[in-house]
Amino acid sequence: MTTINDNYLKLKAGYLFPEIARRVNAFAHANPDAKLIRLGIGDVTEPLPEACRTAMIKAVEEMGDRATFKGYGPEQGYEWLREKIAAHDFQARGCEIEESEIFISDGSKCDTGNILDIFGSDNTIAVTDPVYPVYVDTNVMAGHTGPANEAGEFGGLVYLPITAANNFTAEIPSQKVDLIYLCFPNNPTGAVATKEHLKAWVNYAKAHGSIIFFDAAYEAFISDPEIPHSIYEIEGARDCAIEFRSFSKNAGFTGTRCALTVVPKTLTAKASDNSDVELWKLWNRRQSTKFNGVSYIVQRGAEAVYSPEGQAQTKALVSFYMENAKIIREKLESAGLQVFGGVNAPYVWVKTPEGLSSWDFFDQLLQKVNVVGTPGSGFGASGEGYFRISAFNSRENVEEAMRRITS
Amino acid sequence: MTTINDNYLKLKAGYLFPEIARRVNAFAHANPDAKLIRLGIGDVTEPLPEACRTAMIKAVEEMGDRATFKGYGPEQGYEWLREKIAAHDFQARGCEIEESEIFISDGSKCDTGNILDIFGSDNTIAVTDPVYPVYVDTNVMAGHTGPANEAGEFGGLVYLPITAANNFTAEIPSQKVDLIYLCFPNNPTGAVATKEHLKAWVNYAKAHGSIIFFDAAYEAFISDPEIPHSIYEIEGARDCAIEFRSFSKNAGFTGTRCALTVVPKTLTAKASDNSDVELWKLWNRRQSTKFNGVSYIVQRGAEAVYSPEGQAQTKALVSFYMENAKIIREKLESAGLQVFGGVNAPYVWVKTPEGLSSWDFFDQLLQKVNVVGTPGSGFGASGEGYFRISAFNSRENVEEAMRRITS
Repeated sequence: MTTINDNYLKLKAGYLFPEIARRVNAFAHANPDAKLIRLGIGDVTEPLPEACRTAMIKAVEEMGDRATFKGYGPEQGYEWLREKIAAHDFQARGCEIEESEIFISDGSKCDTGNILDIFGSDNTIAVTDPVYPVYVDTNVMAGHTGPANEAGEFGGLVYLPITAANNFTAEIPSQKVDLIYLCFPNNPTGAVATKEHLKAWVNYAKAHGSIIFFDAAYEAFISDPEIPHSIYEIEGARDCAIEFRSFSKNAGFTGTRCALTVVPKTLTAKASDNSDVELWKLWNRRQSTKFNGVSYIVQRGAEAVYSPEGQAQTKALVSFYMENAKIIREKLESAGLQVFGGVNAPYVWVKTPEGLSSWDFFDQLLQKVNVVGTPGSGFGASGEGYFRISAFNSRENVEEAMRRITS
Repeated sequence: MTTINDNYLKLKAGYLFPEIARRVNAFAHANPDAKLIRLGIGDVTEPLPEACRTAMIKAVEEMGDRATFKGYGPEQGYEWLREKIAAHDFQARGCEIEESEIFISDGSKCDTGNILDIFGSDNTIAVTDPVYPVYVDTNVMAGHTGPANEAGEFGGLVYLPITAANNFTAEIPSQKVDLIYLCFPNNPTGAVATKEHLKAWVNYAKAHGSIIFFDAAYEAFISDPEIPHSIYEIEGARDCAIEFRSFSKNAGFTGTRCALTVVPKTLTAKASDNSDVELWKLWNRRQSTKFNGVSYIVQRGAEAVYSPEGQAQTKALVSFYMENAKIIREKLESAGLQVFGGVNAPYVWVKTPEGLSSWDFFDQLLQKVNVVGTPGSGFGASGEGYFRISAFNSRENVEEAMRRITS
């Protein structure tokens, strides 16, 4: 008989967002006249920048002429896109990243899951708590964990709490871990990592031969000039870090799909014979074999982000959402709630009032003021007692939601 | 120290198409005036159908208006696309496939690799020989094989030879296998499977609790009304088969990227406690966790394939390439070569003349007449002595290539 991958059976049935959708749908069904405002899932709402649309329409038109038609592209992405990313996002910030080290993909969610393909199954994995659930679930699926306990923690994973007590920074563990997921600006807490903090992580990783998976999907929301946008701004990171980035949030590509992963050629890990193997070669082979590149049309859209018009338009988009974040912060604070994040990140992390559990606060907001957020406990045990509010919505909806919550 | 997935080191260094590219580039460099005609990689060359382009431009424009902007879509694909596929590609041919059993993806190459995620590592895997290399390499990466021998065959895989001696059909194995890759119309041989042949496979799979991975990427090229387009035309296939399809070849989407995988809800495999687990649930969880759906713009382009204009335009595309295939067949036969395929498939499978090896014939065609094909031995040991010629090119190039080969 054919067998399944039993590790899938360890996954918890209710992935956070489907459970939110279930409760929201049940409420909407019972209250058809309620005007729900969704500040839950971190999905963008504003139009795609005009520069990207113009570039994509031109690309579609090119597909209509034999002379400019594009068939299979490079699995790693087109050079003209990789060059611009290397120059603008990395070299301009002093990071020694070359275009050949950049792999274009259709999403950071895919890449942060797929990256595990090239690593051994005997590595010790560290994640923060709370954490973006995909990091954990993909490790469960790959058989890197034991079953979950009642708190939802999986055996075999090292959880690094990030709470108000440690200012939402992931503390360097005392034990040795091999693969470490860091996400800054952080989803869900909205916290950022200072240069010193990342330097400590890089030093730790280099000392232990560990690899850091650095998720920088929200780097465009950083306004503080002292905060690094890339881990490669830290000396030595080329030898210990893989970075994930996305066009989803800065350019509104959640429905258009384009992202990138940086694998420096200096990065190695151990084969079972103790030899050092270049991770770039393994990832290149993985992508060439199991991926066929991103749509030509979409890559042209992503390229337009780097034009002067695209830069201005994406900056305006980011500013718009960050003004929403500011409104959310200020209104909630004025209502006496304790808030974190929302300054260099599009997420505001709220302490639930009166010791309410995250889900109780979720239900209360849903039922009393018809506002949807995300329960902090859905991101991990240490998220209990917190609540994530996303700045991704129209100004009108954000203002109305804050009016309802604070009145 | 962090460890790598050692299975990657078992992969053969020269994946077929990179090796072809290497030889072609070396030749082109040494002979800059040679006018190469490429009939190697199965990549389309003709413009994208107008219906698809019109739909994609409209979709890009929708992205420019807040009211019609699309963020994250369903990971499984939009209902309006899945419905049309279910109705047109399956139900219209008598296959009981529902829209919810169809998962939209960005490529069949990705899906045929990723599908292994949900299966156990103790399954016995059967592939044909010759075979599309991705099926083998993804199993090597997943640790399902031993090392390769000198012929390039990996230990632990069951190879089913398809040669002229068995009319290029994969014979039912005498031993028990769990996962079976079948590709019809076949890449590389251009052979098709009759209803009786597929029925024998379905009966075998049902008797042994096996799962068939049926790659139907080339179904649009079938002209013989007796040949099934889908394995679900065979009774019982819902209980033993997963089907992969693509818009790459019928609608010219190799650079636009859209495909689909069908996982019937009646399909089960065994957990380690011997319980039956629905594969649909596992694949749905895999896609929800490790994938974020296909670009909205691209899905609108794929949907347009099912409009009356799209149907007419894709039929015209297929006819154009099949006329190329007919020309290739006739010219090579008239030159005394033995040819197979090319009737219900865009590939012509040629016996090399005078007992030449596949790579010797490759080099001879490259150097003497500047035509690039694909050595049959690159697809497996039983492909030795064969050569694949693709019908994907302009009429002019196909005619010129045939003139050069036959003169």
